[in-house]
Parts: sequence; C-alpha cells; structure tokens
Amino acid sequence: MTPWLTLPTDTDFSIYNLPFGVFSTEERTARPGIAIGEQIVDLPYWFDKWGQSFCTSAGVHPDSLPKLTTALASDVLNDFIALGKEVTVPFRKAVQKWLCDFSAIDHEALVPMDEASLHMPIRVGDYTDFYSSIEHATNVGKMFRDPENALLPNWRHLPVGYHGRASSIIPSGVPIRRPNGQTMPKDADKPVYGPSQRLDFELEMAFIVGKSNEMGKSITTDQFADYCFGFVLFNDWSARDIQKWEYVPLGPFLGKSFASSISPWIVTLEALEPFKVAGPVQEPEVLDYLKYTGQYNYDIGLEVHIQPAGGNPTCVSTSNYKYMYWNGAQQLAHHSVNGCNMRVGDMLASGTISGPTEDSYGSMLELAWAGTKPVSLEDGSERKFIHDGDTVIIRGWAEKDGKRVGFGEVKTEVVG
Amino acid sequence: MTPWLTLPTDTDFSIYNLPFGVFSTEERTARPGIAIGEQIVDLPYWFDKWGQSFCTSAGVHPDSLPKLTTALASDVLNDFIALGKEVTVPFRKAVQKWLCDFSAIDHEALVPMDEASLHMPIRVGDYTDFYSSIEHATNVGKMFRDPENALLPNWRHLPVGYHGRASSIIPSGVPIRRPNGQTMPKDADKPVYGPSQRLDFELEMAFIVGKSNEMGKSITTDQFADYCFGFVLFNDWSARDIQKWEYVPLGPFLGKSFASSISPWIVTLEALEPFKVAGPVQEPEVLDYLKYTGQYNYDIGLEVHIQPAGGNPTCVSTSNYKYMYWNGAQQLAHHSVNGCNMRVGDMLASGTISGPTEDSYGSMLELAWAGTKPVSLEDGSERKFIHDGDTVIIRGWAEKDGKRVGFGEVKTEVVG
Repeated sequence: MTPWLTLPTDTDFSIYNLPFGVFSTEERTARPGIAIGEQIVDLPYWFDKWGQSFCTSAGVHPDSLPKLTTALASDVLNDFIALGKEVTVPFRKAVQKWLCDFSAIDHEALVPMDEASLHMPIRVGDYTDFYSSIEHATNVGKMFRDPENALLPNWRHLPVGYHGRASSIIPSGVPIRRPNGQTMPKDADKPVYGPSQRLDFELEMAFIVGKSNEMGKSITTDQFADYCFGFVLFNDWSARDIQKWEYVPLGPFLGKSFASSISPWIVTLEALEPFKVAGPVQEPEVLDYLKYTGQYNYDIGLEVHIQPAGGNPTCVSTSNYKYMYWNGAQQLAHHSVNGCNMRVGDMLASGTISGPTEDSYGSMLELAWAGTKPVSLEDGSERKFIHDGDTVIIRGWAEKDGKRVGFGEVKTEVVG
Repeated sequence: MTPWLTLPTDTDFSIYNLPFGVFSTEERTARPGIAIGEQIVDLPYWFDKWGQSFCTSAGVHPDSLPKLTTALASDVLNDFIALGKEVTVPFRKAVQKWLCDFSAIDHEALVPMDEASLHMPIRVGDYTDFYSSIEHATNVGKMFRDPENALLPNWRHLPVGYHGRASSIIPSGVPIRRPNGQTMPKDADKPVYGPSQRLDFELEMAFIVGKSNEMGKSITTDQFADYCFGFVLFNDWSARDIQKWEYVPLGPFLGKSFASSISPWIVTLEALEPFKVAGPVQEPEVLDYLKYTGQYNYDIGLEVHIQPAGGNPTCVSTSNYKYMYWNGAQQLAHHSVNGCNMRVGDMLASGTISGPTEDSYGSMLELAWAGTKPVSLEDGSERKFIHDGDTVIIRGWAEKDGKRVGFGEVKTEVVG
C-alpha cells in the first residue's frame, strides 16, 4: 500500500495503523480524526466529500451512512464506535483506500498534527484496572509480603482487578498536580496530611469496549474481537504512600483516583492483528470460562522516559505488552461473568506491565525497588519516585516485516 | 402549608418533601417529575404553564428560565442539577408554592404515580462506596479477622471507600439475576465456577453530587451543602462468596459489580434539613481536612423486608442513617482531598448502615452472622442469604413535628 502523501520514515502512524482520535484546531471545535504520518484526516470533512463512495465500496451498508454523519458530528468517538465493527472496520478500510488512491488526492481533508490539539477520544463510562502482569504482581508481593510466596492464592486463578475512577482520565499533554492526602509515616503513631512523597507512574495499556452487553449476560473469550474497539497507552498514576495506608481492606482509592493519563490515538484491534503472539502457559489450568483459543497477546514494545524540568529524557524502562499473563479476552470474560454490563467507551487497563528483567519493570516502585536502588538520570540526578517538574513519557509501537503500527506517546508533566 | 390536592395520611411524599425523579407514561417518554402524595408533578408541562411566574417570584433569576426549559427536556436530571442550588432550591420552592396556591389548581399537571414508570433519575458518572458504619465494620472485622481488634488501623482515621461500578446501578423494580462467578469452597484445593451461594443485600443510602470541582482542587467539609444535591436509598447487592475469593489485595470487584439498586426519588438535602442530628464523637481526633462544624447526620429510619415468592414480607432489619460514624461532608472532603474531580451525577454510597443492636444490622451476613444464626421469615422459612424468588425491599423516612419526608422504597426481585 502506497499512500499519496509523504510519511516520515518509521512513523507510528503508518498506512497500516490509522488510529482514531479527537482533535480541534483554531478554526474548528473538537471532531473525530484519523492519524496518518504527521497529519490528521478531518473525518467530518472527509466523510462529507469522499465518504459515501469510498465507504460503500469498502462494504459499509448504505443504511449506515446517515448514522455515520451523525456519529462524526460528535466531539467523542462513542457514537461512532457504537455503530459496531460491521461499520467501523470497513470505514477504516475506506480511509485507507482513499489515502492510496492517487485519483482522489485532497490535502484539504488533512490537518497538520502540529496545528491541532488532541482531546479525550472517548467519554469513559466505567474504568477498570487489572493486575495482569505476573512479573509486576510477583515484584510487589516480594517487596511487601512474602518473597517465598509472592503471589496471592487467587492470582493464577483469575485476572485480579478493581474499579477505578473514570472522571480523572486525561489525555497526553495535560499536566497533573501532585496529590495531597493522608499517609502513615513509618514508626509514627498517627497519620499526617500533606503532598504525596511517593508519586509513581505505572506503565500500562488499556482497551476500549466497543459493544454493550445486556445486564445479566456474560461475554465469552471468543467474542473479544467483537467487543474490543482498540488500545491506548495508559499511565496509571499512583501515590504509593497514600495507597499503602488506605488500601486494606477495600483496595486502592485516593492513591489512584487523582489522575490517569492516556495516549490520544486509539489503535484498532484490526491494526494490531499482525502482531499477535502466543501468551504464556497458564499453570494451573484455568476454569472453562477463562479458556481461550487463538492469540490475544501482542508484541508491542513499550518504553518509559523521565524528563526533568529543563533537561533531556532518560529511558528508565523497556517492556512489552506480550509479557501479559492474563490477556484482554480473559479480562473481559472475567469482568462480565457475573452479568456486569459493559458499555461502549468503558476502559479496561492491563495493570503495570513489567518484564522479566530489572530494566523492564513498569513502575518506579519496582525500578528503584521501594526506594532502595535509586534510578540515575542522564543529568546525574537520581529518582526513587517522581519529582515535581518531571515529565513522564510512555511510548509504544509494534513492528514486523517493515510494517510499523505505533501508539505515539502519553506525556505528562507533574506540577507541585 | 396546605396543598390543594388530597394527600394520603403519612405519605412519604408530603408537601415538605418534593423529591425529584424521572418518569414515563404510556403517552409520553421519560421526563423529570416531582413526587407529591400519590401523584407526580409533570415538570416540563408544569414549567411551561406555571414555571415562569412561580419560579421568578420564588427567586429564580430570569436568565435561568431558558436553561430550565432545556434541562427539563432531558430524560435524566443531570442538566437540571447542574444549574446549581441557586436555581434548583427556588425551583423546588416554586413548585411547593404552586401546590399550596388554591388559585392555581391544575390537575392536568399531575400524573397518578400508578400510571407511571419510574426510571434512573440520573446518569451516574462515577460511583463510590464507603464503609462508614462503625457497627458494620466492627461486625465484619469480628467475623473475618480478630474479634479483639475488629477495626483495621486506618478505619478511625479516614472514611474507607472504594470505586464501584456505575453501569449496573438500576432503579427500584428492575429484577436482578443471581450472579455467576468463581469461588473457593472451604477446604477445596481449587476454585469452582457457578451461581453465587451467598447473595446478600446491603442497606445503604447514597448522595448525588450536584456540582463539579476542578481537577486538582479539593472540596472542604463546609462546602457540602453546595455540592450535595440529595439522597436516595441504596441496596449494594453483594455476592459474599465471590467477594471473599477475589478481594485481596485490590478490593471488592465482581462480588459487587453485577447490580446496585436505588430508590427512584432523590430527596433533596434541603428537605432533610429539619432532621439533622449530631454525629458520634470521633475518637481519636481526625485530621483537619476531615473536621466539620454543624451537623451532617440525619435521623432517617430504615427498614429491610424480605418477601419470598408468593408470600408476605418480613421486616428483618430496622436501622437508621444517624448511626453513621463518617458523614457525607467528610466522605466528600476525603474523596476530593487528592484533587479527584467530582462531576454532577456522581454517586457516593454510605456503606452498609448497621445499628448497635442485632435487629439493626444492615446485611444478611451480619443478621445471620455468617450463616450461623438463620433469620426466620413469617412463612416459617429461614434465610442465611437471599434465595431466588425473594424480593428485598428497603424503606426509609424521616419524621418530626408532624412533618414526614420519606424515600419511598427500593424493591428488587432476585431471579435465578
């Protein structure tokens, strides 16, 4: 496939990717777009001018065309996604064909990314965070519980997860404020109030639910492709000291709810298809409702960089989504096994994605091993946790046979 | 205050109450209403005909009138509530004055409640469940941890809470399905899959956030009246066996997320004002951000009834909202202390409201003491937990000096 516009070498947003997002320009308010190279396809404009012919020939049913016009007039993608894969998959193919059709060149339909602001691509209904990396769960268990029995008894039997806060999910570029809260200092006899002293990132990915299920009906693992619209990078900001004091017995709350940051482009499940890899062997065998056929792990390289105020970024972690012990199909099947209804726009995050080596851990808690092994940055400074003025950048991409499908980045500055 | 329409003696929906809800009739789709006796004030109709004069004289600024027309055209109350107390408080007073104005009698503005269907009154953004009854927390601690140290170390220092599932909050009248899930039977060496064997209710109340705060800014306890729109009864359905196996270390998840049921009428904070009572002395002293002046406990009688299929209801619990150790103002201040942004329509539930005596416990877990003391129903049958075909009914009301302000009920049948 050769597009008629010039793409930078190694762009995350190749012709094979075409992720969906929401952008605004000085001239016009927020609207859906598709990233291609350093440009954005302005979808309402494009659909109005080219959509009917390209979509129909790509397999969109004519009855869906008016619904597309309405959905693309929204400032979030929920209505578009809710049209279902039978519409959104051929729609994306239509844009792909148009970008490669030298008889349909139209630079008016493209907006330079550096002239656009990127927004939350969806209105998140409910957000759930899992804990599905065995390396991460083992590291945390070693640090805080028993090094010999790091995993809790339920961990290998179900994808442990908890409900998170949807209101405070923000896109890349929005700074976060260091949270205040209640903590219990070591050896103190009463708690204190103040800014968190142990602010951390968590390297995660999240997928966006693309189809609703009726309350009381569960979703099976083999329905995943129908129910998952796509993935984003996810930074699950954590205040370790607040979390430590509050989380027994009902789980993390204010240690998490102050902010979570996502990359602004949703990479579709279809774009990730070529990068499927086998997941780990799950031992002991899981219950039937968690069994799956096919592959739901993806070879997606992940990096975390810390950039101090005025300084250069240092890569502090190199991990991969393929390390996930529990995959998305299992997470969704588990989440709905009790009849819990999922809605379009719900977000399910992976939990911290740590790899097997020390340089692949997905949080400062693990990288600096609870503060005992500070991480050195390029400017000579050290980090046990994140400082005010630091910017944390997560990047992710898949690459195979010369085809690159990337997520861009989620970049967040911490202000005091 | 004497209304021109006849109200049943002891109605929950007296002239002093005037709670807000959303209803539909055979003739027209869902719209906002106010309950009065056995009638509903049809708010879009009422506002169109009477609203301008009554609202203006009650203190609604004329600029707000067009916004009210738009807000009342919605099928949820979020837009109405978002207009703020400076609009919603005089609006409710205007309806009260109209109902007592014998020169403005208009039966066309009233819909008999038995001809209406009641819906979810709001679109819930985020839902949080607290754990704020010291009797409940103590009972659970005695059963599952250490009878001598029933409360965990953090319990008296902060209102423990966790994020819940918003999608599965349903109004009274909608039946729930017994959830399937993974449990670890006693003495088993591996978990099993199947329907929960320990389905339970939790007697709770919840308040609805009426004002948004900017992310990064916290809400103080003395701002509660400005940020709390009103209260509903809340049944936090729980599958104890699923919860027990899943909840360490990240908290309750599928043991809760299958359903929560609410009463359909939101009783405003203003209607509850006369029923304020002092809360318990909090010892040890709480941190400054959790201190409060004034009263935020309310004397609201609560009852739980179990009605077996084809049988009569038996009252199994008599409790009161006044027993709350942590009040709503403290819950909201704690929830936002880290800068977490609250949105109009967010719901904060109290946690199970147990009283000091055995007949005032707010869950089957406590009433039947983990299955060791079955509860007898009127038909001679016994309950350790809830059976298929049972209907659970929660009622709540406040009464003082001949003025009654009630919540009606939340009534839910369990189907297998």
